[in-house]
Amino acid sequence: MSLLVVGSVALDTVETPAGKAENVLGGSAVYFAAAAHRYAPVRIVGVVGEDFPEEHRRFLRSLDVDDTGLAVRPGQTFRWHGRYRGAMNEAETVRVDLNVFGKFEPVVPESFRDSRFVFLANGSPRLQMEVLEQVRKPALVAADTMNLWIETARQDLQELIRRVDVLCLNENEARMLTGEHLLARAARRLIGMGPRAAVIKKGEHGMTLASAEAICALPAYPVEEVADPTGAGDSFAGAMMGYLAREDRTDHAALLRAAAHGTAMASFTVGGFGPQHIAGLSLEQVEARVAELRAICTF
Amino acid sequence: MSLLVVGSVALDTVETPAGKAENVLGGSAVYFAAAAHRYAPVRIVGVVGEDFPEEHRRFLRSLDVDDTGLAVRPGQTFRWHGRYRGAMNEAETVRVDLNVFGKFEPVVPESFRDSRFVFLANGSPRLQMEVLEQVRKPALVAADTMNLWIETARQDLQELIRRVDVLCLNENEARMLTGEHLLARAARRLIGMGPRAAVIKKGEHGMTLASAEAICALPAYPVEEVADPTGAGDSFAGAMMGYLAREDRTDHAALLRAAAHGTAMASFTVGGFGPQHIAGLSLEQVEARVAELRAICTF
Repeated sequence: MSLLVVGSVALDTVETPAGKAENVLGGSAVYFAAAAHRYAPVRIVGVVGEDFPEEHRRFLRSLDVDDTGLAVRPGQTFRWHGRYRGAMNEAETVRVDLNVFGKFEPVVPESFRDSRFVFLANGSPRLQMEVLEQVRKPALVAADTMNLWIETARQDLQELIRRVDVLCLNENEARMLTGEHLLARAARRLIGMGPRAAVIKKGEHGMTLASAEAICALPAYPVEEVADPTGAGDSFAGAMMGYLAREDRTDHAALLRAAAHGTAMASFTVGGFGPQHIAGLSLEQVEARVAELRAICTF
Repeated sequence: MSLLVVGSVALDTVETPAGKAENVLGGSAVYFAAAAHRYAPVRIVGVVGEDFPEEHRRFLRSLDVDDTGLAVRPGQTFRWHGRYRGAMNEAETVRVDLNVFGKFEPVVPESFRDSRFVFLANGSPRLQMEVLEQVRKPALVAADTMNLWIETARQDLQELIRRVDVLCLNENEARMLTGEHLLARAARRLIGMGPRAAVIKKGEHGMTLASAEAICALPAYPVEEVADPTGAGDSFAGAMMGYLAREDRTDHAALLRAAAHGTAMASFTVGGFGPQHIAGLSLEQVEARVAELRAICTF
């Protein structure tokens, strides 16, 4: 089934205790595609500047990504410089240059409007809703968000949440958005806000999937060497949405299996810098890790 | 199989956002017994003062607990006053009166020295080792500890850890003891310190079980109403050790199933004040929750 992602394409500089990567390919849509491409062909809507290296475009095409919706605008590509320390739970932003991404007005090409599975990567809820207006009859729409929008655009965010099927966010954001300390209560409140399901990402503690049917949870794969957490959440979403698109299912049980694929993928993502090393994984490698994850919590 | 616990017997006053309980029965050995009694007969070694209410002793006997090792000393019973706020992850101690527990010198009665399964509840590592000297050939010894001993008695604690089979502690303590931020690394380091397995308790994030065989993890049961977290860890240990004693097994797979029983039990414990409400649960109720827990992470 067709799979659309709308999000950022960036040039990242990342510093972690394991090393530093400068001006490497990044962005939510890129990590999503690097994870999703092995499940279903990916369509990207995003924007880059005139400086966007041709090799990165070739890399995306090598994943069979349809980049018809990747606009080139006068100016520079979005740049993000982040740093992780200690537990590496959250990035500290050293510098952001939005550049052409600051004026991003997502236009979904006509050939993408029939997309059945749609992922709205983190962005302003207003922009995310503009994308929703442009797709016809998706089977499932998932949206990611972050603390910034909870703090500065709560009303728009609530309107967006009512209109999507799956809300993705991390545990602190889930608490912030609902005002509930206890995660099970936060999960219950989230699905009361409108979406069919909420996916709460908890880093090394795994994830919680809440729907009207059940509140489920999976542990993380126990990664012992983290090089760079950048893109973990977006590659989680990529594998999750890719799995759903491949299976053409949207029920709770499929969502949980999809989340297991997301969990497995994210465990690979944090093991290296940039999206290339996950893009090259075979489906067998990912499925083997899914099987390991299953063994980890089977009693 | 015979199951011995050495720990505190206390009179607790607990304040939480859900209410207040004053001078109720508490202590690690009591919560352990309230959880374990349905799996195997429990032997307690502990100490109380002359003020220890007869009704509490009757309560313990009603659980078929052998209280031969529960000494009565001149003076008052250990009293603890704690308060939980917000996320209720950690108790704030309002007041502690150690009373007779301050001079606790555990004596394991002759009739207990053949105990096959032994739980050393949180206490000074030196006292925990004194107990070890007094038991003959246990099949499995588990010990709980806390930040206080990591800070003030690290060397004793390391010696203890080398001598036990299973080390139980919470995630912050695991990080503190190993100096590792990443929990999977901390888990690996813990088993490198000598025990066959480490059980890392993560509250609403569930638990991690590490052994040379594997690093496994189970989510918590998604509790939406927490009345009082007191005793969650000790009742987890009670159900875990009770399960192992009942099955007379000590292998990794049995430990993981035992941890599932511990997780289920702890989810009941936090739902009310005091140990009585878990003592009254039927084995069927606990097993039904274990089955629910399995469904939560089966994909």
